[in-house]
Amino acid sequence: MIALDWGLSSFRAFRLDAAGAILAQRSAPAGVLTVADNAFESVLAAQLGDWLDDAPLVAAGMIGSRQGWVEAPYVDCPAGRAELAAQLRRQPLAHGGAIWFVPGARWSDDRAIDVMRGEETQIVGALAASGLADALLCLPGTHSKWAIARGGRIVGFRTHMTGELFGLLRRHSILGRLMPPDPADDRDDAAAFQDGAERARTPGGLLHHLFSVRTAGLFDRLAAPALAAYLSGLVIGDEIENALATAPRDLPVLLVGAPALCARYARVLAQRGIAATSLDETVGARGIQAIAQAAGLAPG
Amino acid sequence: MIALDWGLSSFRAFRLDAAGAILAQRSAPAGVLTVADNAFESVLAAQLGDWLDDAPLVAAGMIGSRQGWVEAPYVDCPAGRAELAAQLRRQPLAHGGAIWFVPGARWSDDRAIDVMRGEETQIVGALAASGLADALLCLPGTHSKWAIARGGRIVGFRTHMTGELFGLLRRHSILGRLMPPDPADDRDDAAAFQDGAERARTPGGLLHHLFSVRTAGLFDRLAAPALAAYLSGLVIGDEIENALATAPRDLPVLLVGAPALCARYARVLAQRGIAATSLDETVGARGIQAIAQAAGLAPG
Repeated sequence: MIALDWGLSSFRAFRLDAAGAILAQRSAPAGVLTVADNAFESVLAAQLGDWLDDAPLVAAGMIGSRQGWVEAPYVDCPAGRAELAAQLRRQPLAHGGAIWFVPGARWSDDRAIDVMRGEETQIVGALAASGLADALLCLPGTHSKWAIARGGRIVGFRTHMTGELFGLLRRHSILGRLMPPDPADDRDDAAAFQDGAERARTPGGLLHHLFSVRTAGLFDRLAAPALAAYLSGLVIGDEIENALATAPRDLPVLLVGAPALCARYARVLAQRGIAATSLDETVGARGIQAIAQAAGLAPG
Repeated sequence: MIALDWGLSSFRAFRLDAAGAILAQRSAPAGVLTVADNAFESVLAAQLGDWLDDAPLVAAGMIGSRQGWVEAPYVDCPAGRAELAAQLRRQPLAHGGAIWFVPGARWSDDRAIDVMRGEETQIVGALAASGLADALLCLPGTHSKWAIARGGRIVGFRTHMTGELFGLLRRHSILGRLMPPDPADDRDDAAAFQDGAERARTPGGLLHHLFSVRTAGLFDRLAAPALAAYLSGLVIGDEIENALATAPRDLPVLLVGAPALCARYARVLAQRGIAATSLDETVGARGIQAIAQAAGLAPG
């Protein structure tokens, strides 16, 4: 089968065998936001080329949102492979086959609604890859997700806007003005990152701690190229502190995402005495396969 | 005497009588950032015009920083009118008089340094105007300051980057995209503001709660023009929650700032059972006078 991870900014396709092993993969900056006039099918054909045959095509990510090709409405928690498979949306294709879209997941507490789209599939894949049914999962990124899985299903989750806030502060705030003009000159300074993560645990709150980036620069406590790493430690440390405060402590912890980013999170978790297993984003393909199998679209 | 509140973006001058009453005031958008080639003295002459005589001239704010006219180095806490008066910096003027610059204040805890410049003078003025020697003071704004005063001196304070973060999120984030294109169309929605402030007290942390602005918009829980007020409630609620967590509870609370902003803070404090007295920013002139009197530059 062919699994598609089609987000706002990127397109990734995986050819999988029946056991879920990745036989080949392709990627392109052909995200949903780059597709004009809803020409999704021609973009798909151009990207897949000779891969387009009778193999089932299943896509996860923002391609299944209101901004995408076909909207696959959110499935409420608890949501696992069976619940997601039951709500796949099918779209016929011109060459005769069809493409299925995986729905996102939704969780409500008393006061607010939270949503994910794409990460639910990575979580299904991470549980399959790790052989776990119960886990605390962290998917770091622009909008980090922390999810609790029990019995193979997502029972609740929270989004943290950590990556987006870091980017805003780096590019547009008074803090960024003390840093090198080109973010490429920021140093991946492990000590400064750890300083920030430790500071995030002290009283005062994130809005206060952010100002310490400025004073660290003004009073030469940190060199300009180390300030972004310190800021990263502050926001990631704050995210982890708050996520752990509301998470059950009896669950194994899985990190799913880009390896360098997962390594930063793992370091902060280790400082708090928590061991985490890291999986990269290709587990999303495994998740798509598990959902396709539950829907009877793929053997297994 | 003439008191100047000369910040990065604005210039304000007050003519005071010996009792501290404001006889007249002038203001202009002639902030430090608008002055080219260090031409501070000609800007001062142009703004004061016929006010320029033998009256002592004392200025507070960023005009006394490294970016300003003459740097008046930070005074370490505890800092009150006497400590600030002792560190005034004098600069002779071409017409024969002189101008004095009030220093900023600095506070260090074990891990980081915090600074203010301009607010120390407003605090001195607020204590003088209220007749209090011991108080918890909040000066809301781009960089809100929460200070503890005892015996008439600032003994510690913390900065919160609340206003700046609100602006970044409103203008540049995914949250702003759900709001009216023109911020002038945002509605001052008291119920949405209160919702946000209440939500900030629930578990999850600010980075998580911010995402609820998005879901409130996506699922039509709030109309687009009300989202900015909800976001404002979230960040102000978070600031107040964290500030109160580290503040002594035995002190009267003074709010110093723009009346509409102080009213928002007062509402959140009232929800938490805390009564606050609000004073507007003109108390800064009173603070300058108190410092000038302590330095022997003004009668009183």
